[in-house]
Amino acid sequence: MIGRTHGVHAEPITLGFKLGGWHQETQRHIQRLKFARAEISVGKISGAVGTYSNIEPAAEEYVCEKLSLKPERFATQIIARDRHGCFLAVLGLIASSLEKFALQIRLMQQTEISEVLEPFAPGQKGSSAMPHKRNPILCERVCGLARLIRANIIPALENINLWYERDISHSSAERVIFPESTILLDYACNLLIEIVDNLQISAERLAENLNCTRGLIFSQRVLLALTAKGLSREKAYEITQELALRSRDRGQDFKKLLRADGRAKKYLTRQEIEKCFDQKYFLRHIDHIFKYL
Amino acid sequence: MIGRTHGVHAEPITLGFKLGGWHQETQRHIQRLKFARAEISVGKISGAVGTYSNIEPAAEEYVCEKLSLKPERFATQIIARDRHGCFLAVLGLIASSLEKFALQIRLMQQTEISEVLEPFAPGQKGSSAMPHKRNPILCERVCGLARLIRANIIPALENINLWYERDISHSSAERVIFPESTILLDYACNLLIEIVDNLQISAERLAENLNCTRGLIFSQRVLLALTAKGLSREKAYEITQELALRSRDRGQDFKKLLRADGRAKKYLTRQEIEKCFDQKYFLRHIDHIFKYL
Amino acid sequence: MIGRTHGVHAEPITLGFKLGGWHQETQRHIQRLKFARAEISVGKISGAVGTYSNIEPAAEEYVCEKLSLKPERFATQIIARDRHGCFLAVLGLIASSLEKFALQIRLMQQTEISEVLEPFAPGQKGSSAMPHKRNPILCERVCGLARLIRANIIPALENINLWYERDISHSSAERVIFPESTILLDYACNLLIEIVDNLQISAERLAENLNCTRGLIFSQRVLLALTAKGLSREKAYEITQELALRSRDRGQDFKKLLRADGRAKKYLTRQEIEKCFDQKYFLRHIDHIFKYL
Amino acid sequence: MIGRTHGVHAEPITLGFKLGGWHQETQRHIQRLKFARAEISVGKISGAVGTYSNIEPAAEEYVCEKLSLKPERFATQIIARDRHGCFLAVLGLIASSLEKFALQIRLMQQTEISEVLEPFAPGQKGSSAMPHKRNPILCERVCGLARLIRANIIPALENINLWYERDISHSSAERVIFPESTILLDYACNLLIEIVDNLQISAERLAENLNCTRGLIFSQRVLLALTAKGLSREKAYEITQELALRSRDRGQDFKKLLRADGRAKKYLTRQEIEKCFDQKYFLRHIDHIFKYL
Repeated sequence: MIGRTHGVHAEPITLGFKLGGWHQETQRHIQRLKFARAEISVGKISGAVGTYSNIEPAAEEYVCEKLSLKPERFATQIIARDRHGCFLAVLGLIASSLEKFALQIRLMQQTEISEVLEPFAPGQKGSSAMPHKRNPILCERVCGLARLIRANIIPALENINLWYERDISHSSAERVIFPESTILLDYACNLLIEIVDNLQISAERLAENLNCTRGLIFSQRVLLALTAKGLSREKAYEITQELALRSRDRGQDFKKLLRADGRAKKYLTRQEIEKCFDQKYFLRHIDHIFKYL
Repeated sequence: MIGRTHGVHAEPITLGFKLGGWHQETQRHIQRLKFARAEISVGKISGAVGTYSNIEPAAEEYVCEKLSLKPERFATQIIARDRHGCFLAVLGLIASSLEKFALQIRLMQQTEISEVLEPFAPGQKGSSAMPHKRNPILCERVCGLARLIRANIIPALENINLWYERDISHSSAERVIFPESTILLDYACNLLIEIVDNLQISAERLAENLNCTRGLIFSQRVLLALTAKGLSREKAYEITQELALRSRDRGQDFKKLLRADGRAKKYLTRQEIEKCFDQKYFLRHIDHIFKYL
Repeated sequence: MIGRTHGVHAEPITLGFKLGGWHQETQRHIQRLKFARAEISVGKISGAVGTYSNIEPAAEEYVCEKLSLKPERFATQIIARDRHGCFLAVLGLIASSLEKFALQIRLMQQTEISEVLEPFAPGQKGSSAMPHKRNPILCERVCGLARLIRANIIPALENINLWYERDISHSSAERVIFPESTILLDYACNLLIEIVDNLQISAERLAENLNCTRGLIFSQRVLLALTAKGLSREKAYEITQELALRSRDRGQDFKKLLRADGRAKKYLTRQEIEKCFDQKYFLRHIDHIFKYL
Repeated sequence: MIGRTHGVHAEPITLGFKLGGWHQETQRHIQRLKFARAEISVGKISGAVGTYSNIEPAAEEYVCEKLSLKPERFATQIIARDRHGCFLAVLGLIASSLEKFALQIRLMQQTEISEVLEPFAPGQKGSSAMPHKRNPILCERVCGLARLIRANIIPALENINLWYERDISHSSAERVIFPESTILLDYACNLLIEIVDNLQISAERLAENLNCTRGLIFSQRVLLALTAKGLSREKAYEITQELALRSRDRGQDFKKLLRADGRAKKYLTRQEIEKCFDQKYFLRHIDHIFKYL
């Protein structure tokens, strides 16, 4: 498929390579979640200000062991909220990546692009008013939920800043953000799993889009081929850009323009030009990259 | 041009109508800015805790009048920060709309859509590596700046919550967010004015995209025409959706499928079908709407 | 009572003056709420992309009039989210002021200060473990709720940035933030009304705290009296600060130190020193300020 | 010193124990920073869409090794922004704890409490207008800076959500938030180190405040002593609270009230009452806790 930067065609990639990136990003989040989960796996029953004034430390140790928690040795009335803040920050990070993944599907499902479709049950209505529509509403839902989970980081971190050995201002906020961020992130994860598992991919459209710029995406290879033949980068850029913009503006085939251009012909044979337009060249390292998955 | 919801073709609109919406949104922001600006146009020189303990109220009145400010009658050592917070919230609101406008241009500049291009100076390089590219980098810049200006609302509102007759914690934050939000918003506004003023619009691509679904966008009119002839909405939806999805999946013309469909033909004459596919029908109220601009 | 800046005694104010400031801040929020409420009092039934393609503008006008709403003339599929964003920003502003008011009560209820107590029902337990305690838990609750309502501004403003004629990503976020911000702010307002209505004020403690620095709070008047007698501000500051810090560090009466100081005596008579220590002087303009309420 | 919850005296702690909690919190942040720093220690030179289309993977490996970075195997045009987001989230977490530490000092420096003073250079002016003042302005500055660094998490996480193989909207935001969050956090850390290193502690005031409630802080021990003698918790609470509130409201010594109370005397000898008022009892586990530092 075509790789895009700034929403504009760049160079060929593969859909698997794109999804491989999501896989790696997800792996990083799993590591972060493990880190944050270990951090909040602490317990405390050391009394009103954390000094074990009316309970023995051994009691805390006994209870925490039963609960698979570590005792919090320097607590106040409560466990310090930087631990909870870190956990909720990780949930916000994960949600932001889910938003990114969902957004990519939404981008690829745009009518003019139509490379993928999020799952659509047989008989489902795409739009109550417009029967022809298939809308990526699940992906859009994930995007909206991500905004909530991300914003909850702010109260979670404001909650760190409690008075003396504790004030209870964090509590009313936590009663909302803890269930909200955990439940909604779980839901968003499940939505996205369902979407990716059943994603409808159009190999035909992927191929069509790859070719829809009539060879323009190979401009960098032409540029490099010209410079390899001794042309200055500046001059090579000028020629390549000029022909590329003409191809774009007039809907003409870039390769044909190149073949017909006196300046280009001076440096590149027909065969060398042909070689610049080989899609496979761009993908020759993909298998190598997948070894690192 | 085609109107889109969920990134998917819906019904025809005009580009002017789209821009008219931006105009209205901008007008609302101007009203909000006037409101917020009036709110912060106050002054105070009423002393260390706001009681005029070592200065006469008349002095404050005199000075404020010279500066075209209203005296703040119930101040503490400072003017309460809800005023500043409201002003910065309005800047964040405006920035969020600029982000929206810039995003629309980015969406329309995607290779497969190519309806508009942000300005591009002759001789400018689209990409140092890929000579064929024209990237909406100014619009992307506006989007990034909007994130900053929006996020600055949070410290501005946290600053409201000062101790007693004032603590100075707001000051270090304000030294950053005041210049940052005002300067960056001014810059983003100017960027967007430049972009919109010199926007390159492709009437050809607007027309092509309108037709690229082979008539699917008229499905609602077909649905309504069928129900107007006595068919139940449910049944009409079923027929229309079935033909629409067939048109989509097989790349066949929706109007032709309709003409050939036995069920549809029972309810709609060829002329009635033709009428459903009239673009101008969708735009018949546009001039009316513009009277409210 | 004593006015405080940076948590440190500054000059005398009155509790009524402090509450007068809250009153004014509340009045400003009422104006903002009216402004934002008028902004969202619009309706639209202009169809899938806002063009009245299948409905007459008159129908929208008729329905909106019945609902006391204004028709939104330039809509897309929906009403633009800058309107909703402004409304939620105002709720966040109000919440931030409630947090400020609640914080002031918490500050004044600290054990060493004990000027006010939030209401406490007869028989209520202050702390399950510590029977002597009376904790400002309602005020702390208001502070926590404010953090939520303020943070909801961020998703509300991110929601402005929708695609084309609408995507539905705002919806999942709005299903949470609309009920959350409106209900919690209503609750927080009611909590604070109850607290302020039944606030227990200790006139005794207010008086005690006013005097607890042994006259130090009158240092500015001494400074001004010395400079009025021709001493340079620099020299006057040096003498006043030296005696003030001695008073503070050794727990000695500031007035007595002043009377005994050779340098001070050269410029100020006993009567002039006495005049500097008059609390009423600081409050002579309070009644004037209240005329502006 | 007295430990406080809700701003109200609870039970004795030590200042060292309080600072020990800060130490532990700082240690956790160091671990988080190491985690986040390792995460961003990656490099990529794999080309326009991350496929090594015009460069060999070996070149990336060579360069990254020279820079002590790991190669990012699944990149797009850039390294995914979840890495940068995690780093900035950790900076926001750290800043929130600095705000908490600075806030504790501000709380303890309030005039009525006066347990500590942030450093004050000889000859420094506390307030230009009020010579007697010593304000915790450095701690307040740290609090304001923390608000900025925390809020920068939001654009950092919004930046994750880029289009396709990259759009450049993150860049304008990162040019602000990267220098801002790193430089300001460094500055805030250094401020706080300077403050804590030179903190002026008043042992005298710590002792005075511990006793200023006339024994009320021992109410829990009295409660437990009464229940240990067979009184129901409910009845014991009722007696203890009644005497505690009388002590508070009338300024009478709690121990004396207890000794004189017929109900209390029935259960507790004079010696047993005396034992309840032993400060050292509360601190008997402090040394044990410090072993875990």
